Amino acid sequence: MTRYRDLGLTVGQLPPGPGNAITDVGDVRVGVTTLIRGEGTLFVGEGPVRTGVTVVVPHDDIAHRPVFAGAHRLNGNGEMTGLEWVRESGQLTTPVAITNTHSVGVVRDALVAEEVARRHGSSFWSLPVVAETYDGALNDINGMHVDAEHLRDALASARGGPVPEGNVGGGTGMICHEFKGGTGTASRTVDGWTVGALVQANHGARERLAVDGVPVGRELGRDRIPSAWDQEEAIDAGAGSIIVVLATDAPLLPHQLDRIAQRAVIGIGRVGGGGEHSSGDLILAFSTANAGRLASYKLERPSAPVDVTMLPDGMITPLFWAAIEATEEAILNALIAAETMTGRDGITAHALPHDELVAVMTRYTRGPA
Amino acid sequence: MTRYRDLGLTVGQLPPGPGNAITDVGDVRVGVTTLIRGEGTLFVGEGPVRTGVTVVVPHDDIAHRPVFAGAHRLNGNGEMTGLEWVRESGQLTTPVAITNTHSVGVVRDALVAEEVARRHGSSFWSLPVVAETYDGALNDINGMHVDAEHLRDALASARGGPVPEGNVGGGTGMICHEFKGGTGTASRTVDGWTVGALVQANHGARERLAVDGVPVGRELGRDRIPSAWDQEEAIDAGAGSIIVVLATDAPLLPHQLDRIAQRAVIGIGRVGGGGEHSSGDLILAFSTANAGRLASYKLERPSAPVDVTMLPDGMITPLFWAAIEATEEAILNALIAAETMTGRDGITAHALPHDELVAVMTRYTRGPA
Amino acid sequence: MTRYRDLGLTVGQLPPGPGNAITDVGDVRVGVTTLIRGEGTLFVGEGPVRTGVTVVVPHDDIAHRPVFAGAHRLNGNGEMTGLEWVRESGQLTTPVAITNTHSVGVVRDALVAEEVARRHGSSFWSLPVVAETYDGALNDINGMHVDAEHLRDALASARGGPVPEGNVGGGTGMICHEFKGGTGTASRTVDGWTVGALVQANHGARERLAVDGVPVGRELGRDRIPSAWDQEEAIDAGAGSIIVVLATDAPLLPHQLDRIAQRAVIGIGRVGGGGEHSSGDLILAFSTANAGRLASYKLERPSAPVDVTMLPDGMITPLFWAAIEATEEAILNALIAAETMTGRDGITAHALPHDELVAVMTRYTRGPA
Amino acid sequence: MTRYRDLGLTVGQLPPGPGNAITDVGDVRVGVTTLIRGEGTLFVGEGPVRTGVTVVVPHDDIAHRPVFAGAHRLNGNGEMTGLEWVRESGQLTTPVAITNTHSVGVVRDALVAEEVARRHGSSFWSLPVVAETYDGALNDINGMHVDAEHLRDALASARGGPVPEGNVGGGTGMICHEFKGGTGTASRTVDGWTVGALVQANHGARERLAVDGVPVGRELGRDRIPSAWDQEEAIDAGAGSIIVVLATDAPLLPHQLDRIAQRAVIGIGRVGGGGEHSSGDLILAFSTANAGRLASYKLERPSAPVDVTMLPDGMITPLFWAAIEATEEAILNALIAAETMTGRDGITAHALPHDELVAVMTRYTRGPA
Repeated sequence: MTRYRDLGLTVGQLPPGPGNAITDVGDVRVGVTTLIRGEGTLFVGEGPVRTGVTVVVPHDDIAHRPVFAGAHRLNGNGEMTGLEWVRESGQLTTPVAITNTHSVGVVRDALVAEEVARRHGSSFWSLPVVAETYDGALNDINGMHVDAEHLRDALASARGGPVPEGNVGGGTGMICHEFKGGTGTASRTVDGWTVGALVQANHGARERLAVDGVPVGRELGRDRIPSAWDQEEAIDAGAGSIIVVLATDAPLLPHQLDRIAQRAVIGIGRVGGGGEHSSGDLILAFSTANAGRLASYKLERPSAPVDVTMLPDGMITPLFWAAIEATEEAILNALIAAETMTGRDGITAHALPHDELVAVMTRYTRGPA
Repeated sequence: MTRYRDLGLTVGQLPPGPGNAITDVGDVRVGVTTLIRGEGTLFVGEGPVRTGVTVVVPHDDIAHRPVFAGAHRLNGNGEMTGLEWVRESGQLTTPVAITNTHSVGVVRDALVAEEVARRHGSSFWSLPVVAETYDGALNDINGMHVDAEHLRDALASARGGPVPEGNVGGGTGMICHEFKGGTGTASRTVDGWTVGALVQANHGARERLAVDGVPVGRELGRDRIPSAWDQEEAIDAGAGSIIVVLATDAPLLPHQLDRIAQRAVIGIGRVGGGGEHSSGDLILAFSTANAGRLASYKLERPSAPVDVTMLPDGMITPLFWAAIEATEEAILNALIAAETMTGRDGITAHALPHDELVAVMTRYTRGPA
Repeated sequence: MTRYRDLGLTVGQLPPGPGNAITDVGDVRVGVTTLIRGEGTLFVGEGPVRTGVTVVVPHDDIAHRPVFAGAHRLNGNGEMTGLEWVRESGQLTTPVAITNTHSVGVVRDALVAEEVARRHGSSFWSLPVVAETYDGALNDINGMHVDAEHLRDALASARGGPVPEGNVGGGTGMICHEFKGGTGTASRTVDGWTVGALVQANHGARERLAVDGVPVGRELGRDRIPSAWDQEEAIDAGAGSIIVVLATDAPLLPHQLDRIAQRAVIGIGRVGGGGEHSSGDLILAFSTANAGRLASYKLERPSAPVDVTMLPDGMITPLFWAAIEATEEAILNALIAAETMTGRDGITAHALPHDELVAVMTRYTRGPA
Repeated sequence: MTRYRDLGLTVGQLPPGPGNAITDVGDVRVGVTTLIRGEGTLFVGEGPVRTGVTVVVPHDDIAHRPVFAGAHRLNGNGEMTGLEWVRESGQLTTPVAITNTHSVGVVRDALVAEEVARRHGSSFWSLPVVAETYDGALNDINGMHVDAEHLRDALASARGGPVPEGNVGGGTGMICHEFKGGTGTASRTVDGWTVGALVQANHGARERLAVDGVPVGRELGRDRIPSAWDQEEAIDAGAGSIIVVLATDAPLLPHQLDRIAQRAVIGIGRVGGGGEHSSGDLILAFSTANAGRLASYKLERPSAPVDVTMLPDGMITPLFWAAIEATEEAILNALIAAETMTGRDGITAHALPHDELVAVMTRYTRGPA
């Protein structure tokens, strides 16, 4: 797997964390289940299958020890379940899962079942966060090939350290700026804090693609990389979506995390996303800092105020930049890690050609040092 | 089935529509699937089952002819999928389904599958609206007994005219102001327009219950109607939720429908709801007026502006009152229509006793005329 | 000055604080400047004048020690400056002032000037919170008779203890449910915390007025209390606005204060307000609990996280009820304390007649004990 | 006055309108009052004065014929009065004024007085939109030198065609990306529609400044252009704000205009803004399309629905890009048009040196054609 910086390129002004991944933050773990099966003509219910599930697990016992969270909507042509609860409580109480648009329900109920299995007693409810982007260009999305076991596998595989990127998990069948897209991650450190981003990138028009300010999309024009996929009239350029999950160990309160979440918009915009009408661009941000202090209201009956830690607003701007840059590089990592994929009906989504990218960057004086 | 007005009582100042139901509005139809099965001790996965699915169908071809819609959150301890799309587009593009908390996913994907079955071509996506309230006090909620067929049955049963109320559909196992709750509906007409409400009422503390301003809950104190259910410590008074669906034929734009949606809060408050912390109080409002004018972006490529009809703001206040009163009476109808139910582990939720209610109302000079 | 409870009436289920006023909370102080001058025909710029300024001061040094705050909009036909800053920062950084609609600017700049006078150095900015309701039915509102000195006088007069109510301060020329309205306050205590409300009540239709659930407005019909004011065609019933300021000593975070703020809607609704279209119904809520912990970003450069205290969500529902009831009784206090006033062009707004109110309440079995 | 394109540079992919200004849209007019007076040491109340007022007038009779409007907040450390009314009604009912932070009130009341002077009858109210950015680095902001006459002069000077840019109007004393900033405008046409932007640009850190993707700020480092202003410790880099006003003749409904407004965030981000904590980044968007169809609720009593025109969502993405690019270029125009200014206490804000900019752009292969 190749990552953006493996090409000798950089972006942004802040240093990445040790893994340049969302797993640089606290005990955050990521797991994926990737489903690739079949070739050729689409038969709904049979395939070909190009999809999966990605999970981001804030820590091992999120149901009993929720974390503060916030959210932002750039464009609402998408789904992220559990958002009303995040907004109301300012807390994230479940792992976050990302899959394809038509499998949100099964993954959502599977997350409920996971919590049922872990808890004692029967009187509680679960409002999991499950988001999606649309992979119907390559995948038999209406065949609904994701099931509860795939969610469980993704959870079981969740680990810290290096994160699988590109054609994996929920990102398996995704297309980004009209190149093969998928899963990407990155991180930034500043003032002793870390901000990590994980994206499922399925959005963007090619002509708008920018890498570190260079108009790569216009240089790598449509005619250079023909694709059967281009003939699929029903698929607009920029028709897809992007889900962004931001994690930080900085002690931010819920209203501060809403602010962090909105900064991902600038990261998306820097790569050339515009929040196009057909795009479901939803962002979730959480902080691992106060995890142990927030009692789960579900099982415990609190009887006194608790102390929580808060970053003063005067220290927050560097974290905004960390969120912007981590989002930007996570999208680039999704593009660079993804490999050319042929899906249903022989439709091919081509990978962004690394050599051509480096050539364009070099031509614009932004090539490898 | 007894309704609130069958007791000789009234509430509010505006006249109901002919059916005093959400089906008084345009071609709105309501369908229910009710699942009641088993008795006695809870075995997760076996039962007892006290749950179901309710659907509100704006008109026969909602996927191709969306309607303007708006929403409001009183308290977000609940789920309503599809909300980001409603908020972004100002449109409702699917039927609305309501079920129990842990079956939202299966119903959501089943609605997707229904749209798949109805559409031609494979390149579209569906973002259905599915809401929930928690029936775990009576129902084996973690057994997840709702499946896709139940959603299909509810859709197939959807019709205009009288609406089943009380222990039906998604409202089957609900508890409201510590009496048996469930599904309720009502409507109001004003200035030639109709506003209808349908609620799944599972919220409220008994001591706060008010009927037409009379403190019925305090009069019908807890000791008067003992219930095994009272001993279930994990269930707080007021711990449930209420979902409100408002429909109108008045030509309201999306931002006006957001305003209508918020007025349901006042209707909930008049009956004694407070948006308690554990309550998921979410409101959706739609207008049938411009249905034929909004092209589905999914299949058609628009090329010119369209004319839509808008109610001037100067005419909107009477509709606010219609929404308030319809919501208020829909909750009362849920309470009056619901019958005593014994569910899992022998827990019994008692119906609000009609004769005692009338006696209290009479004592407060608000009895039957 | 007569208050609601002086009539022997009660409302709600929670006990008021010692003063039944917003000043029961921490060091909160209230000040008013009342401007009553002239009689007879309106000459714009000359009078008659029936207006003023009310200030709510969270504590003595709010500019340097901000407090957490939240807000809610029931209906936006009104102004509350500084709201974007409250929403973004979750903090209130200035006193709150309330005046008439056309004098918001002068009061806002006067609050800036007050902060200028108190601070050292020139490099800071002030974003004060100033709200309004419309008193043009009685007052020469377009004569803009409020000036900076009136704001300073209100600040200078601010004190704890009993709060002036009725025809005072910003509430001087207000009309509520078609009776004379104005300034009102109330409080509730629960679980050791206090919630106080102060309202400037200028909203509501008479036919909707309810007192403790009794339909007082319908009983005290329009024909019973004729008023020249009724002939003013341009003034709709329910055309006015209500501003609600909620204060609490419970340690609530900003997102929790947004929730508290929304509960005022239910308090307004219980008295018969509907968020009518012409009404500017805006609510601000603040907590005095963490005042000393929030560094002013303006002068100090923070370098480390701070500890703040947070009420667990599981303890918040009683505070919701405290906010509902305090708002409800504050409106009633505004109505009861206000006295009949004749303003410009001889227009008279009649006070709610206390004896008739008690008679109606008694008839509905809700009279004095 | 030099504009960005006068340097031979371009940005974006869509063509500007004939004037590359917000006045390309319908009958939109812009007026400015510029106040430059005094030199040397700051004496509060005496000067030096470096401030002013800018007005954007949607059309000649906005009070009687409101236009649809929407808004977005990137960062709320700022003021825009009238926003609650814009959000509630979806309409803009007054001209928009922009001034310095501490003069918002006087300008707001002056706009009220203007409406008083134009209307017949006394029973209406006005909720004007007045925004601000902070010019205290150069201007005696606490001297409050703006008065009502300056607002009237700005309105009287408002005209179509070329728009004054740089050190004019409310933008007179502004600083942007640590260069002299101020007022800027630009426009884009697409599919027969026009989107225009006007900004008051007072935001941004130099190191983040990007021009058409080129990292100009890093190249033109701080040491290259020393400034007394750099020693003003209280002024953070990126501490200022940006106000964006977007106008379009495309027939967008209020919820669609909210979406347009959010796209300005991407335009700000492309030039290097991050919505820094100290920045008040507020965006207003309006459409001139349905102006004649919206009855003013204030004077007229509507009795029937009206027809309004709506752009189908499927046609909206190109307008998003128009808003992004117009905002981006409006900021660049503010930077290019602004000239070096010395203000209070001899603090100098240097203009972005045109020749050095062109040299950097050329070095990055983005120079003049």
